[in-house]
Amino acid sequence: MPTYTPPLKDMHFVLHDVLKVHESDIPGYDELDPEFTGAILDEAGKISRDVLAPLNMIGDTEGCKLENGVVRTPAGFKEAFDTLREGGWTGLDCDPEYGGQGMPYVIGTAVGEMQVSANMAFNMYGGLTHGAYSAIHAHGTDEQKAMYLPKMVTCEWTGTMNLTEPHCGTDLGLLRTKAEPVGDGSYKITGTKIFISAGDHDMADNIIHLVLAKIPGGPEGVRGISLFIVPKYKVKEDGSVGEPNGVSVGKIEEKMGIHGNSTAVLNYEDSVGYLLGEENKGLKAMFTMMNEARIGVGLQGMAQAAVAYENALEYTRERLQGRAVTGAENPDGPADPLIVHPDVRRSLMDQKSFVEGGRAFLLWGASLIDAGHRKNDADAVGLISLMTPVIKGFLTDKGFEMTVQAQQLYGGHGYIEETGASQFVRDARIAMIYEGANGIQALDLVGRKLASDGGKHVMAFFDLVKDFIKENEGDAALKKDFLDPLKAASKDMQAAAMYFMAEGMKNPNAALAGSSDFMHLFGHVALGLMWARMAKAAQEALDSGASDVAFYETKLATGRYYMARSLPETALRLARIQTGAEPVMGLAAENF
Amino acid sequence: MPTYTPPLKDMHFVLHDVLKVHESDIPGYDELDPEFTGAILDEAGKISRDVLAPLNMIGDTEGCKLENGVVRTPAGFKEAFDTLREGGWTGLDCDPEYGGQGMPYVIGTAVGEMQVSANMAFNMYGGLTHGAYSAIHAHGTDEQKAMYLPKMVTCEWTGTMNLTEPHCGTDLGLLRTKAEPVGDGSYKITGTKIFISAGDHDMADNIIHLVLAKIPGGPEGVRGISLFIVPKYKVKEDGSVGEPNGVSVGKIEEKMGIHGNSTAVLNYEDSVGYLLGEENKGLKAMFTMMNEARIGVGLQGMAQAAVAYENALEYTRERLQGRAVTGAENPDGPADPLIVHPDVRRSLMDQKSFVEGGRAFLLWGASLIDAGHRKNDADAVGLISLMTPVIKGFLTDKGFEMTVQAQQLYGGHGYIEETGASQFVRDARIAMIYEGANGIQALDLVGRKLASDGGKHVMAFFDLVKDFIKENEGDAALKKDFLDPLKAASKDMQAAAMYFMAEGMKNPNAALAGSSDFMHLFGHVALGLMWARMAKAAQEALDSGASDVAFYETKLATGRYYMARSLPETALRLARIQTGAEPVMGLAAENF
Repeated sequence: MPTYTPPLKDMHFVLHDVLKVHESDIPGYDELDPEFTGAILDEAGKISRDVLAPLNMIGDTEGCKLENGVVRTPAGFKEAFDTLREGGWTGLDCDPEYGGQGMPYVIGTAVGEMQVSANMAFNMYGGLTHGAYSAIHAHGTDEQKAMYLPKMVTCEWTGTMNLTEPHCGTDLGLLRTKAEPVGDGSYKITGTKIFISAGDHDMADNIIHLVLAKIPGGPEGVRGISLFIVPKYKVKEDGSVGEPNGVSVGKIEEKMGIHGNSTAVLNYEDSVGYLLGEENKGLKAMFTMMNEARIGVGLQGMAQAAVAYENALEYTRERLQGRAVTGAENPDGPADPLIVHPDVRRSLMDQKSFVEGGRAFLLWGASLIDAGHRKNDADAVGLISLMTPVIKGFLTDKGFEMTVQAQQLYGGHGYIEETGASQFVRDARIAMIYEGANGIQALDLVGRKLASDGGKHVMAFFDLVKDFIKENEGDAALKKDFLDPLKAASKDMQAAAMYFMAEGMKNPNAALAGSSDFMHLFGHVALGLMWARMAKAAQEALDSGASDVAFYETKLATGRYYMARSLPETALRLARIQTGAEPVMGLAAENF
Repeated sequence: MPTYTPPLKDMHFVLHDVLKVHESDIPGYDELDPEFTGAILDEAGKISRDVLAPLNMIGDTEGCKLENGVVRTPAGFKEAFDTLREGGWTGLDCDPEYGGQGMPYVIGTAVGEMQVSANMAFNMYGGLTHGAYSAIHAHGTDEQKAMYLPKMVTCEWTGTMNLTEPHCGTDLGLLRTKAEPVGDGSYKITGTKIFISAGDHDMADNIIHLVLAKIPGGPEGVRGISLFIVPKYKVKEDGSVGEPNGVSVGKIEEKMGIHGNSTAVLNYEDSVGYLLGEENKGLKAMFTMMNEARIGVGLQGMAQAAVAYENALEYTRERLQGRAVTGAENPDGPADPLIVHPDVRRSLMDQKSFVEGGRAFLLWGASLIDAGHRKNDADAVGLISLMTPVIKGFLTDKGFEMTVQAQQLYGGHGYIEETGASQFVRDARIAMIYEGANGIQALDLVGRKLASDGGKHVMAFFDLVKDFIKENEGDAALKKDFLDPLKAASKDMQAAAMYFMAEGMKNPNAALAGSSDFMHLFGHVALGLMWARMAKAAQEALDSGASDVAFYETKLATGRYYMARSLPETALRLARIQTGAEPVMGLAAENF
C-alpha cells in the first residue's frame, strides 16, 4: 500500500526561501513566519499522512454506494471528516466573521496539496464545500450568508456545484433546468444535473447545492442563466434542518477513478431554491470563483504526481533488478536497485523536477490570489487570471503524465491494483477533464486571456522573466544553467504570441489550432522561471552557509535537469504553432 | 457502448498500394492478391465487429473469477472462442503440417489488429497460445510437436509463457523455480510464477504452460535457465487428457485493465515437465519468438488507439456543443458538433495520423518477418530485429497517449465507464509494460541493437530513407511536404546515433540516459517514412485516375499533418539526447 510523506522541507523552501512570504506586504502575510507556517503545515501533514492517506485505497476499492436512495461513503471517511472538522481545518482560509481561521490562500494551498496527495477523492467533499462557500460569500445576501456560511465553514453542511446536464457540459447556454418564481421570493427548481461531485453522501447534516437554472421568459442562452441555492433539506427559520427538498439521487456514476467521491446524477423536482446574486447573472456569479477552482484542480494534477513519485522512488530504491551498466553498485546483493539504471533515473528526474517546479508555480499563483483579495492588487489579479488556464491545463496534463511514468517504474506490479500506482493514474485523469476540459483552458488562454486588456498581462509576465534575467545575469553559473535556457524559452513564447497576433486576426483557426501547444509552451516557461528563482534561492542559501548543503545542491541539480531536458520543448511547441491552421483544419470533417 | 468498424479500406491501401504484397517475391505472397486478402480481411472483420467487440465491455465489467480453484471467464467468451476455432482463425499463420492455414505473418498481423481492437483481453488467450506454439514449433522434438501442436493450432489446448516470479521480472537470472530431473527424461517443476496471462480459464481442455526454471547444479544466473513444457493436465500416450499435473492457481490479479484476461499466479508443485530445447538454453529458446511477441504488443498499442479514435470521432460528430469560431456550421441545430473546434480537430488529427502511420509500420514490419522466415532474408531479419523495440516501445507509448486523447474528447463522459473510453485507456496501459517494459525496449535498442553487426542494420535503415528521398525528389509537392521534413528528421536521428557512438564509448550512461528519447526519435522517423511512402502511393493512385479521390486526398492531408506537426519532435528528442549523462545521473541516488 502506498505511503505519504508530507513535503514539509520543500514547502518551507518555496514559501520562505523563494517567495519570502514573511517579508511580503500582503495583509496577513506578516504572521507567516517560518515558525508559524511550520507548525500549521506540520500538523496538516500529520493528519494527511496518518488519517487521510490510509483511507485512499479503501475509498478506491469500496467506492460510494447508492442504497435505497442513500449514498454510503467508504469505511472511515466519516470519522476522518470529523477529525478535519474538529481541528478546524475545513475553514482554514475562510472568513473569521463566519467562523473561519482567516488564513491566506497560500497556506490553504499548501495544506490542500497534502490533503489531495493523501486522498484526492476524500478531499473533494471539503473542496466543493469551499467552492460553494465562496460563491455565497461573494454573492449572497446578509441573511443567506448568516444562514449558510457558518455551517459550511465547519462542514456540518457541505456544498456542491451543479452545472452539467446530460446534453450540455461546456456549452451551458443549452441548459434546461427550470426555476419558476413562486411569488414569495423563492423559486421551484426542476431538472436533472449530472456529474455532481460530492453530490450526496452520509457525512453531513445537509448539503447546499448551488444550481444553475433558467427562469422562464428570460433571455436565450447563457444570458438567461441564474444561480440558486437549493438545500438538500429545507432549512427552518431557526437554522435547523427540516423536510427533504425534492432532491433525489438518480445514480452514482461508475468512474475510472476517484471512486471515494460520490459523483451523482441529481434530480430536482419542485425543489425550493433561492436566487444567489442577480437574476440572469448566474454564470458570472458561478465563475467569480473560477480562478480558485481551476487552480485547485491544477493542484490535484501536481499533488497526484507528487505522491505517485514518492512511492515510485521508494520502489526503485528497494526493488533489486539488474546491474548498473558502469559496474555493480550493490555487489553483495543479488542485483542492484532499479534506481541505478539511467532510464529509471531519467523518469525520476522528469517527475521530481515537474513536481517541485509545479509546487512553486502553484504557491506563487496562490500568493497572487492573496495579493488580489487582500490588497486589491489589480496587476496580480490580471496575471493570475492569465495564468489560471496554464495552471489548470498544464499541471493536470503533465501531472497525469507523471503518474503514468511513476506507474511504469513498477513494471508489471504497477498494473496490479494492490501497489496503488494505478489509482494515482486513474484519479489524476479526471483533473484534465473537469472544471473546464484542458482544451477549453487552452481556448480560454489563447482566445481570451492573451489579448485581454490589450495584452497587458502577458507583457507583464514577459517583463517578470526579463527583469529576473537582467537582475541576475552577473551570476555566471546561474546564467549558463538557468537564465540562458529561460531566455530562449521565453523568446519562443513571445514568437508564438506574435504569430497569434499576426495570423489570428486573419483567421482565428490559425491561433486556436495551436492553443494546446501554447498552453504547454507557457507552462514550461513558467516552470522555467520557477526553477530559475529556486536556483537563485538555493545558491543564496549555500553562499550564506546553510547547513543542509545536500538539500540545496539537490535543488540546483533538479533545476538543471528541468532546464536542460524539459524546457527545450518550447521550441517544438512553437514549431507546431507556426504551422497554423492548414494542417489541423485542412481535412474536411466528413473526410475523417 | 463502443462500436468497431474494421478498417478494411485502410488495410487494403497499405497492403496493396503501399507494400504491394501481391508483387513481392516472398514465397506465399503470390497468392495475396487484393481479392484474396479482401475476402479474408472482410470475414475476419465481421467476426471482430459482430462477435468479439460486443464482448469487450462485458469482459471488463465481469472480469475473470477464481471459484473453488477454477477460473471462470466472462459470459460469452467461450462461445466466441468456439466461433474462432470453428472458422480456423486460431491457426491462420500456423504450419499446415500441424493443421494451420499457412498464411503469411503479414495477414496474421492485419487480422490480429482487428481482433485486438475489438477485444484485446479476449485476443490474448489465442495470442499466448500462438507464442507457445511458436516456441514448441521452433525447439520441440518431433514427438513434442506431434503431441502438442495440432491441438494448439486449433486452440483445443491453449498455451502460456511463464517467466516472471515475485522477486524477478526483467532480471530473470534471479529466478528460483526448480526443475529436478526424475531420471526418465522428465523433470519435477516446483515454484511460483506470477503475472501469467491467460494462466487459467474454462475455455480449453488443457493448457500447455511453457515454464522457465533452473536445473539444480546448473550455471548461475541466466546461463542456468531451461525451458519446460508443463501441461495443466498430464497428456496420456494416446494424446488424450489425463490427471491434473500439480499446477494450481494462487490467485487472479486485480488489474487496471484487461479484466477479461485471467492474469494468474500459478503454483507448480512437483509438476511433470519436459525439457523444450537444450538444457540451460531456455532463455534463448524463449526469446526466439521475441520479435514476434513484441511486435504483437506494439500492435496492441496501435489497435487500441485505432478503436478509441474511431469511437471518439463518432462522438465529436454527434455531440453538439458550442459554435465554430468562424461562424455556425449547424445553424439549424442548438449548437455545432464538437468536430468543428480547432483543438478537437487537432486531437483527432494526432490520433488519425498516428494510427494510420502505425498500421503501415506494423504491416511493413510483418512483411520483414515473412521475408526472414520464408526466404531467409538476413537483411530483413537484421532490420526487423533493430526496429522491434521501436515497434513495441514507441507504438505502445504513443498508442496509450492516443487513447487518453480519445477519452479527453468525451469530456466528463469519457471518465464514466459506460462510454467505454476509459477501458481503451486502461487496457492499452499494459502494453507499455509487459513483454519487456518500454524502458527495457529502449535499452535493447540503444545498448544492443544499434551497434549490432557493426551498426549495419541502422545504416540500412538510413539508406532506405535516403534512397526513397533520392528516388522521389523530382516530385515537388512530395518533396516539400514529405521528403524535406523526413530528411530533417532522419538527420536528427543520425546525429543522435553519432552522439551515442562518440560519447557512449567514454560513458555508457551518456547513451542510456537518452535511450527512451532515441526510441521515440526512431519511431517518428519510421512513421515519417511510412507517411512519405503512403503519400507517394496516394498521389500515384490519384494520378492514375482512381475513382475514390476523397480517400486518397485524405491520406495526403493526414500525412501532411504528421510531417508538419508530429515529426518535428525529432529535434526535441535530439536536444535531450545531446545533454548526455550529467542532467540525468548528476544527482546521487541518496539525494532524491
